[in-house]
Amino acid sequence: MAPFTTRRRVEFRDTDAAGIAHFSAFFFWMESAEHELLRAVGVSVVERGADGVDASWPRVSVACDYASAVRFGDELDVSAVVEAIGRSSVTYAFAFAHEGRSVARGRVVAVRCLMRPGVKPEAVAIPADIVRRLEAHRSAS
Amino acid sequence: MAPFTTRRRVEFRDTDAAGIAHFSAFFFWMESAEHELLRAVGVSVVERGADGVDASWPRVSVACDYASAVRFGDELDVSAVVEAIGRSSVTYAFAFAHEGRSVARGRVVAVRCLMRPGVKPEAVAIPADIVRRLEAHRSAS
Amino acid sequence: MAPFTTRRRVEFRDTDAAGIAHFSAFFFWMESAEHELLRAVGVSVVERGADGVDASWPRVSVACDYASAVRFGDELDVSAVVEAIGRSSVTYAFAFAHEGRSVARGRVVAVRCLMRPGVKPEAVAIPADIVRRLEAHRSAS
Amino acid sequence: MAPFTTRRRVEFRDTDAAGIAHFSAFFFWMESAEHELLRAVGVSVVERGADGVDASWPRVSVACDYASAVRFGDELDVSAVVEAIGRSSVTYAFAFAHEGRSVARGRVVAVRCLMRPGVKPEAVAIPADIVRRLEAHRSAS
Repeated sequence: MAPFTTRRRVEFRDTDAAGIAHFSAFFFWMESAEHELLRAVGVSVVERGADGVDASWPRVSVACDYASAVRFGDELDVSAVVEAIGRSSVTYAFAFAHEGRSVARGRVVAVRCLMRPGVKPEAVAIPADIVRRLEAHRSAS
Repeated sequence: MAPFTTRRRVEFRDTDAAGIAHFSAFFFWMESAEHELLRAVGVSVVERGADGVDASWPRVSVACDYASAVRFGDELDVSAVVEAIGRSSVTYAFAFAHEGRSVARGRVVAVRCLMRPGVKPEAVAIPADIVRRLEAHRSAS
Repeated sequence: MAPFTTRRRVEFRDTDAAGIAHFSAFFFWMESAEHELLRAVGVSVVERGADGVDASWPRVSVACDYASAVRFGDELDVSAVVEAIGRSSVTYAFAFAHEGRSVARGRVVAVRCLMRPGVKPEAVAIPADIVRRLEAHRSAS
Repeated sequence: MAPFTTRRRVEFRDTDAAGIAHFSAFFFWMESAEHELLRAVGVSVVERGADGVDASWPRVSVACDYASAVRFGDELDVSAVVEAIGRSSVTYAFAFAHEGRSVARGRVVAVRCLMRPGVKPEAVAIPADIVRRLEAHRSAS
């Protein structure tokens, strides 16, 4: 039930003309941390079904609150927990810290969907095996 | 008191391997729509003060909910309103539609800050003239 | 035989902590200008064949030389010409100017390919109708 | 005189609707590899002078040739060498491989510049100590 943790360095591509990391970069970092978490528990981010249709996890809701700016080269400690698991949705909560100081908190709701080319993603139930694996990083609350 | 409206085409850089616009693209579009709104009412996005210090608008909180996927080449109708104006903060609400269908809604809280190189952005009161200009797109509620 | 021209404003997402547009932004602008050129002459950027396979234009070679920095909010005049058309490749040359001053020049070689999911893109001959349309912006030389 | 080597995984942000890594991603990876190389030999990517002016390395010329597509989740072996060192410029050459297969080759010319806010970057001689450090990854030729 421990958070999944990873580290991430602010790259130059992540910065903007205000001299700090652009607020959008945190969403890329959340997405990559989510993918690392999935890999760590043995879940494919994109899973090709027997019928050739990919199952993946588009987002339906995302948010981020910023407490402090970070700059090029800064190393961030990222923690991710699974806050809730619904029939087809997973809610992740993320916390970002730099040298022990909280810099941002975010939340992402991803939905298990079948991704057919050119067609609206179709929400499907999360397989029981994947639910079980996600429980490894379920938040305590 | 009308919303500010603009149009935006989904560019290839905005797409991802799921074949749709990446969720992060909506934040770039919100930011650009906010900047267009500011220019339209005569407010500089970055304003250099007499002391050489830039005043700008870093975000402290952002969120987006997604109703429907959009794809490369789609044209989006973007509307932006000023939902609230605080001492130093402005809350914007955005709605995205494609061919009349709502595809996403977002919210951004930006804070008027002095941006000194290498120093934490410092929140300052929004000048009265700027408040007056922002009222042009204040939401009716 | 005139160049295709378009305008583009430097957005905040295009900037970096050096206070200028990031060098990578010019590649996004070249790609979007190429797509605008294609649309202007009636060529689909992605064309779905009768067999459901998409034909598109991945790049095999790109380059850019930078003469001068541009900044947030600057408006760029972009010109694009078709320098060469091979069996399956098109070479585009781009020039970027800001207020009459040249800021960058780029070159892109794109190849007409069939894009089957999960399979290496397969180069195919450019249809004669598309070659004819591209000639509209063939460079004089 | 060995190349500097690093690994990089294709993130979702790096992909596009063609289902492959966007060609622009290679430039971000080159930039990050260059920065890792600089850190590895003890050179600051951005160095603040005694006068408060930053010295950094804007690019004047970049290029990339693509041999093969890479996809979300692929791990890339990146190698970087210093091909040439001029008075104020450094030419880097990069090679990208996936599972032993070459996927792309790139070249970047960066120039040591003083970056004063709002002023054109000013090329300056590369300090001898930095030249010496860069020699560690000078290509054999």
